[in-house]
Amino acid sequence: MSLTLYELAGADAELRFSPHCWKTRMALAHKGLAAERLPWRFSEKANIAFSGQGFVPVLVDDETVLSDSWRIATYLEDRYPDRPSLFGSAQGRSFARFCNSWADSTQVLPLRMILTYDIFTLVHENDRAYFRTSRETRFNRKLEEFGTETEKHVTDFRAGLAPARAVLSEQPFLCGEAPTYADYCLFGMFMWARCIKKIELLETDDPVHAWRERLLDLFDGLARKAPAMGADAAS
Amino acid sequence: MSLTLYELAGADAELRFSPHCWKTRMALAHKGLAAERLPWRFSEKANIAFSGQGFVPVLVDDETVLSDSWRIATYLEDRYPDRPSLFGSAQGRSFARFCNSWADSTQVLPLRMILTYDIFTLVHENDRAYFRTSRETRFNRKLEEFGTETEKHVTDFRAGLAPARAVLSEQPFLCGEAPTYADYCLFGMFMWARCIKKIELLETDDPVHAWRERLLDLFDGLARKAPAMGADAAS
Repeated sequence: MSLTLYELAGADAELRFSPHCWKTRMALAHKGLAAERLPWRFSEKANIAFSGQGFVPVLVDDETVLSDSWRIATYLEDRYPDRPSLFGSAQGRSFARFCNSWADSTQVLPLRMILTYDIFTLVHENDRAYFRTSRETRFNRKLEEFGTETEKHVTDFRAGLAPARAVLSEQPFLCGEAPTYADYCLFGMFMWARCIKKIELLETDDPVHAWRERLLDLFDGLARKAPAMGADAAS
Repeated sequence: MSLTLYELAGADAELRFSPHCWKTRMALAHKGLAAERLPWRFSEKANIAFSGQGFVPVLVDDETVLSDSWRIATYLEDRYPDRPSLFGSAQGRSFARFCNSWADSTQVLPLRMILTYDIFTLVHENDRAYFRTSRETRFNRKLEEFGTETEKHVTDFRAGLAPARAVLSEQPFLCGEAPTYADYCLFGMFMWARCIKKIELLETDDPVHAWRERLLDLFDGLARKAPAMGADAAS
């Protein structure tokens, strides 16, 4: 087995900030699988054209090429059934599928409003024109207009976490006593923010805050140690 | 065992429209438990004062008194472990807890905007003053201002269903091949709407639409047969 993961990187090749790439990175760690992690920039569509599309994560497992973080997760689960399960059960898999869509449809929007301008300042210079044009077209606003209502968007983000908060007020992880892919779907969102910006997304007495600390500690502090603009100097 | 369920009713005592009471009703049917179902109106707080609070559903199981639909669900699961499981597994229970909060925090708001004035027209005359005052105070708008932007709220409602749609495009029920309490949490919202008003909440090619049909058919058409202002005359 030879695994290669293409991850979105900033101007600093070690700054790997894509929420979806983080889902895959946590999934690989959960399975105890080591992958060569290659930095990829928005302007390098040609480098992943072999995957038949233009977005990361892209995972190559020997002859198998996969894109889309959810497809990668289900592939890893089915291909490596003897390693720790990402889902735990068919019901856990359903929950993870739900969480993945929930995080993408609920958490991405307020975080995008908060982070997009800062992302622009951190991408490779070759990516700047693409990033500006694609985002300004897609969202019909100037990059400089992002991040101007952060307080409101943090409030929206926190409100959107209600279902996770309800569960995490009763147990340490979304599926119970141990982390599963459902956790990584939400955690990817937090890693996106952590990589880009120092910002208090959560109040310290929020059960989601304690959960995030647990996720940062997993796999010998994999996520906590990752280069991130929002990492505390002390951690 | 002697089970009694207090359900919110309209002026027509058979119109039982509370989404939370529907969660409990489906849970009881899932467990194969028959309960005496008593109509309760907003103005009858005194009748459920023995439960220590003022909302339905209230379930009385011999000497045990329970309120809050989620607490009732977990009670039924733990008290009647030999009957069909409401959750299927610890992970299914986590998913249901998540779905319950998700439906309450995501689906209730647009439905409330759509339904509140119609609810007012259907409640018992003794409830009208309470309903108007409590809703107008809580939401800081006149009852007559609800239902005036239904198209927008239907759009919001459909968008909020994205996580359920993602799962239900791949499998018949939220947890897999069979219904669980996660389904009933969302289905309660649809029964709320169905009881109150004839309205097209879903497009017919939405996977959620086919799922709702499946839920209406469960338990010999329990929900489909229930008195409802939005029920098709033919069904």
